Amino acid sequence: MGQITTATRLCAVIGNPVGHSLSPAIHNAGYAALGLDFVYLAFQVEDVAAALAGMRALGNFRGMSVTIPHKITAMLYVDEIAEVDRAIGSINTIVHQDGKLVGLGTDGPGALKALVEAGVQLEGRQVLMLGAGGAARAIAFTLAQRTRVQKLHLLDIAEATVQGLAADLQAKTAIPLEAAVLTDAALARGVAAADVIINCTPVGMHPRPEGSPVPAELLRPGQAVFDIVYNPLETKLLADARARGLQTVSGVEMFIHQAVLQFKQFTGVEAPVEVMRRVVLEQLKK
Amino acid sequence: MGQITTATRLCAVIGNPVGHSLSPAIHNAGYAALGLDFVYLAFQVEDVAAALAGMRALGNFRGMSVTIPHKITAMLYVDEIAEVDRAIGSINTIVHQDGKLVGLGTDGPGALKALVEAGVQLEGRQVLMLGAGGAARAIAFTLAQRTRVQKLHLLDIAEATVQGLAADLQAKTAIPLEAAVLTDAALARGVAAADVIINCTPVGMHPRPEGSPVPAELLRPGQAVFDIVYNPLETKLLADARARGLQTVSGVEMFIHQAVLQFKQFTGVEAPVEVMRRVVLEQLKK
Repeated sequence: MGQITTATRLCAVIGNPVGHSLSPAIHNAGYAALGLDFVYLAFQVEDVAAALAGMRALGNFRGMSVTIPHKITAMLYVDEIAEVDRAIGSINTIVHQDGKLVGLGTDGPGALKALVEAGVQLEGRQVLMLGAGGAARAIAFTLAQRTRVQKLHLLDIAEATVQGLAADLQAKTAIPLEAAVLTDAALARGVAAADVIINCTPVGMHPRPEGSPVPAELLRPGQAVFDIVYNPLETKLLADARARGLQTVSGVEMFIHQAVLQFKQFTGVEAPVEVMRRVVLEQLKK
Repeated sequence: MGQITTATRLCAVIGNPVGHSLSPAIHNAGYAALGLDFVYLAFQVEDVAAALAGMRALGNFRGMSVTIPHKITAMLYVDEIAEVDRAIGSINTIVHQDGKLVGLGTDGPGALKALVEAGVQLEGRQVLMLGAGGAARAIAFTLAQRTRVQKLHLLDIAEATVQGLAADLQAKTAIPLEAAVLTDAALARGVAAADVIINCTPVGMHPRPEGSPVPAELLRPGQAVFDIVYNPLETKLLADARARGLQTVSGVEMFIHQAVLQFKQFTGVEAPVEVMRRVVLEQLKK
């Protein structure tokens, strides 16, 4: 950390809990690397309205990362939200600029950046998305807005969830869609047809790393597999895919890139990606 | 600064403006000296209610210093205030503990500490106080509560102000009092009778350091003079007093000790006074 002055600006993550957040480590490392007069803290918050009222009132409070369970509620208390983020229905970033609180999401763009940086081809490809919850919504709308996939195939165990996302995508984007309840048969058909598989379910996450949303034998060469879970760093799904020679992308890359995009929003300068990646990997190995 | 973690606690000064506040420098130096996991920032604030609502909602926001113009308004938005601070009518410190905001004042106790540390005798002595505004109220109530002065003599150019403070002191304390409008004659009589003179007016403050609230020829050996003004570090009043061999106490000692008392409230540990004094003096010499 550099010298704190009366001009030092505050950014912070709010959530409940926040004790395990990697965000202070990653953002502060970025500030230190670039010599920026910022500090990034973590606040456990229950009353989101009051927390955002406080952000608005505290002159040097520049940026906020919003995490579970406040990504939806926070939308109620900001002044502006981009249309795509309204459609997604959640935000993870708030920027305090010119007296206004501007809300936006970097999860979807962060995921897309992770795929693109890994060299995963999306144009003209079939993308299978497992899970249709909050993260899936963010990634699906980003793919719809910024890529030309051949088809996005949505599967979720909850019919209302998957049909709800499909309806929203149909109403607001032109992405070719297929949506169904996630059954063994639907999964087998979906994986067989997919060029890119994105796991947006929590299956395989610590403390149950033995699980995988896709039976290993369904995977086939030529596919790319992206798992948004990053704890463990290599989930069983990614390990199975790697063992079969498939292209894999870890959720940690999405985490890094959503933070990198926030960093740019908060500070106005490009983030030192390699510094931030190193810090995240160090923290996750602890 | 040490490593920021999700447990790092925030303290901050709120005011308007705050650009020249010495508080971030002094408190952060104290945290660094003791290796405490705290960071201290400065926030320009207009909406005090929202700022305090935010403090209440942000889990790691532990302490707040309150400066001009919010010392009175802030009382409206805290949960508890000590009786003496209610009588004084302002607070400069808010501690967030067990979900409550507790307001208190450290200006009066800081001034008393400055006098005691300098070896100024107060028991059985006549104290002349020039000015009856906010700082005077804090110091007068502290003297009334914690010392046995022979008499406190209040002078202010505004009759309502000086009689208001006198009435409040009479209603709530047993301190022997005299109060009058500050005229040349009243000043001459007051200074002649005083053992200790405390300047609580802004006379002599930057950018008009040539002024003094007491004509030099009125001062006499054996008196102690305390000037709450600390910019310049030695006011004309203090220079005049020193030239005549009087005991002098600079307002910077009050500033240091009010911060030291806040530090203890915020962190729960004794402040590194010498470190904090050095930082303040360095900053004031810039």
